[in-house]
Amino acid sequence: MNSYEKLSPDKDYVRVPKERLFSFVVRVLENIGVPEGDAEIVADNLVMADLRGVESHGVQRLKRYVKGIKSGGVNVHPRIRILREGPSYALVDGDEGLGQVVGRFAMGLAIEKAERSGIGVVIARNSNHYGIAGYYSLMAAERDMIGISMTNSRPLVAPTGGVERFLGTNPISIAAPTHGRPFLLDMATSIVPIGKLEVYRRKGKPIPEGWAINERGEVTTNVREVFSGGALLPLGGLGELLGGHKGYGLSLMVDVLTGVLSGGTWSRHVGNTEEKGSEVDHFFMAINTGNFTPPEEFKSRMDAMISELKASKKHPHFKRIWVHGEKGFLTMETRLRLGIPIYAGVIRELNQIGEETGAGRLVEEGD
Amino acid sequence: MNSYEKLSPDKDYVRVPKERLFSFVVRVLENIGVPEGDAEIVADNLVMADLRGVESHGVQRLKRYVKGIKSGGVNVHPRIRILREGPSYALVDGDEGLGQVVGRFAMGLAIEKAERSGIGVVIARNSNHYGIAGYYSLMAAERDMIGISMTNSRPLVAPTGGVERFLGTNPISIAAPTHGRPFLLDMATSIVPIGKLEVYRRKGKPIPEGWAINERGEVTTNVREVFSGGALLPLGGLGELLGGHKGYGLSLMVDVLTGVLSGGTWSRHVGNTEEKGSEVDHFFMAINTGNFTPPEEFKSRMDAMISELKASKKHPHFKRIWVHGEKGFLTMETRLRLGIPIYAGVIRELNQIGEETGAGRLVEEGD
Repeated sequence: MNSYEKLSPDKDYVRVPKERLFSFVVRVLENIGVPEGDAEIVADNLVMADLRGVESHGVQRLKRYVKGIKSGGVNVHPRIRILREGPSYALVDGDEGLGQVVGRFAMGLAIEKAERSGIGVVIARNSNHYGIAGYYSLMAAERDMIGISMTNSRPLVAPTGGVERFLGTNPISIAAPTHGRPFLLDMATSIVPIGKLEVYRRKGKPIPEGWAINERGEVTTNVREVFSGGALLPLGGLGELLGGHKGYGLSLMVDVLTGVLSGGTWSRHVGNTEEKGSEVDHFFMAINTGNFTPPEEFKSRMDAMISELKASKKHPHFKRIWVHGEKGFLTMETRLRLGIPIYAGVIRELNQIGEETGAGRLVEEGD
Repeated sequence: MNSYEKLSPDKDYVRVPKERLFSFVVRVLENIGVPEGDAEIVADNLVMADLRGVESHGVQRLKRYVKGIKSGGVNVHPRIRILREGPSYALVDGDEGLGQVVGRFAMGLAIEKAERSGIGVVIARNSNHYGIAGYYSLMAAERDMIGISMTNSRPLVAPTGGVERFLGTNPISIAAPTHGRPFLLDMATSIVPIGKLEVYRRKGKPIPEGWAINERGEVTTNVREVFSGGALLPLGGLGELLGGHKGYGLSLMVDVLTGVLSGGTWSRHVGNTEEKGSEVDHFFMAINTGNFTPPEEFKSRMDAMISELKASKKHPHFKRIWVHGEKGFLTMETRLRLGIPIYAGVIRELNQIGEETGAGRLVEEGD
């Protein structure tokens, strides 16, 4: 059995079948006023994150979405409008809707435009947290297109030379079809996303050196110091020596292509989903490979590049060369068979949400 | 005087006025058969690199171009053709022309398409080394557009988990207009470009730890070890702990958008300018900001984001927060006044090229 995931995860986790998790999320959202189709989009996005092993963007996010909907920060009946458009582009106003609903609409539009004109660029403003960036780029790859997805996000990262949380972790994702599993890069432009630190905090463990600074700008392994006034570091780390200015620049690139270009805002002013006017902005692009090269040839070239990569000489400390997205697909294959491991604390939280919203419990604790 | 560059550089450098350098490069190229307009494009690109302080991509490259032209690796009378196009995209064959000539044509086409349709994506295959990526993105910013430029390049970087030179340093550049100097990110997706190591080799100094590995995969400060069988590391460094897989992924992204999509090749198979069929491929994109938001508002938002960034709290070890492109513009302003410092060894090389091609000497040594 070619299984990537360890088969006996931490005993603090409970495995939940995908379908049960999906229908639970749908029920919760429907019960607080989200239309069925929209609830299914959000559930699909959160469950995909958990399936792929990105638990920071999985169902543990539901709590914040519920809070945002209850506080009025998220509009469950958004009037998503196309403000401007041409054959290859559009500007969309998300009307403070759920980020996944806005994102799916906007990426769908980009794909439609790319189908007709070769290229589709759609920018959405006035949205909310949209989950994993790769969800949208994959939509394009499933249609034999190259998909690109980026979003700004609330400030957590210090720019090179600064100590304030100014930049978002502003992820960039690109997906491209192959004859096998798609190539899927989905990366925060910080060294790690904040979700990784939350995992260390929960476990009470020190974080690796180099990920973050405290409020005095010192690199720290103390995760509590980071949460109380510190900041994440951009890809490349502190200062310019190892390229910290590059991660910082990529983060700004995302802000330029999302908030600045859309008439929205930049990460420093982006709020939490729980708040009104969080003002998250997204960028989506679809490239119809067939307008440049026959799609079968494109995929064959992708296959060839990837197999050459994997056959190239290994580093003595590594057993294999991974290609982007591969670990996520293997994890998904395992989890579809065995269920998705959900942290006991998250189970408790979800059960509570289920009870509060009349959706029932996800699983009995100790199941 | 707000001067960024130190005013007394290394005594091994001679300052040469921009005009003299430009006309020298034009003369050399014309004398070996490059048409006048094309020679001026290449000279403009190389001199801009030197003006902005990127000497690795400046006139010291001329030697390789001359070699490539003489060996037949570079076609001085390319028939640059548009193979496919639509209102928002084109695929261009560079016919093994000089990369700058192909690049300027392709980015010009992207800008033209963006002017009419909002978006222009142009991919060029069968080209050569195109100099600094920022040259092309800036062309768009000068027209109040966002410009993006990427290229694959010969293999120098090991993927995460590998030790072989497989990836190119595959740069990504984005430029965006402001009311002042444009925002200009121009970065190799490796921690440093190979040119930086060449500078250390020339000076006989060890390189900083973390930039590169030797052929056994060990991080080394010995620059000679890197050149004999070692490799550069992707942005994020060795392994995944600090995000090396992200730099590796960005490099693959460039290969996908350039060579794989264009029907060209990927970095592993890219050759030197000196060789026939070096097969370099580029990606260009122009976004007409006016199709999304009024251009004046776009620039005002860029200005506001940048001034907020610069006013944010400094790290105790840093005096200021730089924005991408800023150092280059300041260096350029100084060098336009005082001349461009050229390393004595490069002067000797250029003088020799000048004599061999009948273009005369650039400067008398010891000037």
